[in-house]
Amino acid sequence: MSMPAEVLVDGLPADARWPMDRGLLYGDGLFETMLARHGAIRFEADHSARLAEGCRRLGINADLPRIWSDARAAAARHVDATLRLQVTRGVAEARGYTPTGREQPCAILAMFAPPAPGELPERIRVSTLEAQLGENPALAGLKHCNRLEQVLARQALQAHSGAFEGLMCSSSGVLVSGTMSNVFIEVDGEILTPALDRCGVAGVLRAVALREAGQLGIPVQVTTVAPAAAARCSALALSNARMGLVMAHELDGRALAISPRLQALAQRVAQL
Amino acid sequence: MSMPAEVLVDGLPADARWPMDRGLLYGDGLFETMLARHGAIRFEADHSARLAEGCRRLGINADLPRIWSDARAAAARHVDATLRLQVTRGVAEARGYTPTGREQPCAILAMFAPPAPGELPERIRVSTLEAQLGENPALAGLKHCNRLEQVLARQALQAHSGAFEGLMCSSSGVLVSGTMSNVFIEVDGEILTPALDRCGVAGVLRAVALREAGQLGIPVQVTTVAPAAAARCSALALSNARMGLVMAHELDGRALAISPRLQALAQRVAQL
Repeated sequence: MSMPAEVLVDGLPADARWPMDRGLLYGDGLFETMLARHGAIRFEADHSARLAEGCRRLGINADLPRIWSDARAAAARHVDATLRLQVTRGVAEARGYTPTGREQPCAILAMFAPPAPGELPERIRVSTLEAQLGENPALAGLKHCNRLEQVLARQALQAHSGAFEGLMCSSSGVLVSGTMSNVFIEVDGEILTPALDRCGVAGVLRAVALREAGQLGIPVQVTTVAPAAAARCSALALSNARMGLVMAHELDGRALAISPRLQALAQRVAQL
Repeated sequence: MSMPAEVLVDGLPADARWPMDRGLLYGDGLFETMLARHGAIRFEADHSARLAEGCRRLGINADLPRIWSDARAAAARHVDATLRLQVTRGVAEARGYTPTGREQPCAILAMFAPPAPGELPERIRVSTLEAQLGENPALAGLKHCNRLEQVLARQALQAHSGAFEGLMCSSSGVLVSGTMSNVFIEVDGEILTPALDRCGVAGVLRAVALREAGQLGIPVQVTTVAPAAAARCSALALSNARMGLVMAHELDGRALAISPRLQALAQRVAQL
């Protein structure tokens, strides 16, 4: 760099450490939202594999064994909690987008309350959003920290329908996911979940659900899903690490059925 | 939120302020890179207009008059400098993507050395990159902090060609910009610059160059530009706030001409 000669935060002189972290400058990092249950991280192997894949694809040389050792210790200490683990590329060594490759990655572990009983609404309403997801295969699947599309989508959801979750399509018009969840739909007797090769987050609970569906003999197709298929689905389930796999009750004001197969899958996932 | 019960940074207890800033969590913010010259911010009105538009579109209620007052004071103090002004939505008030709307936006002003004479290579080489830009009209044009696409593109550029700049296409296959600049090409005797309605950053120097081109009677079309047009262009110029408008000498190993009209435009912009 040259580090900056002066850094002001809200007009006052400040330490350059955080203001120059590439996580803050460019969203240059990855995160995992996880549950600690009975002192252990739920689906740790899946979260760990996704974070490692993200670090590899972004070229972030984090000390992952140490990071997971700290996360396990924190989970043991808090017993039941929501963990947010973020890894940034660390403090910028030069002005501009190009990393030097010598940055010291930074791990941030924040412990929140576990999901509260009754946290989910009794009736889960889902709306189809106009807010779209840009397509970039190089970033597809990763839980990286460039999340403005989700922020805009959540704002739109609150402003317009107040629904629990919103369905998002990619710029080429196929269904991808919710704003904070992956989706499974039942349509014409088949269960589908969108392929995530061009955008979207490859959710850990999605991976778990796909694995367990295989075990239960429930066929789930990972495929291109047209919004029209979603619009006429008979059932819809949402997945993320905090809530697991849950059934939606309503899509754009239309009541949905509870699919026995998706229900069975949700129960299986909850038991793990 | 519920703020987190505990925050660890690299395994050590830490203050939650920066680790919970939405700029760090989600790249939820905007920035401007500017020049201070003779104690004043160059093209302040254009930077200010773009930042205001970004805040409006992202719903960030920053105190812009105070922020620009601080920036002007810093420019006056440093006389000649590179300024990076970032505005984040501020510390998260709740876990998850949804802003409450009550966050206190945060302004970070970092002062770097001014561009050094001889900082640009004598021969400006440009490569066409495979790294692409996702399309999202809701974010198009903004200089927001979701910049992983540019980070990946700069990594690819360094690894493969070592060129000064790389041209990027959108996911639907049209030319958008460089990794850190906007582009003007001369092809079949016409000067074109890509429309930025689906992705890309509406650069301040791009706006200045378009305005000045109008003054000089040099027609510039803002339009959809196919990569094939760029591939056979006779001349190419790059613009950003630090370097102004500069001529490229080589595209994918092919020598480019110096366009008299682009040259005249570059000189005019440099004189402002």
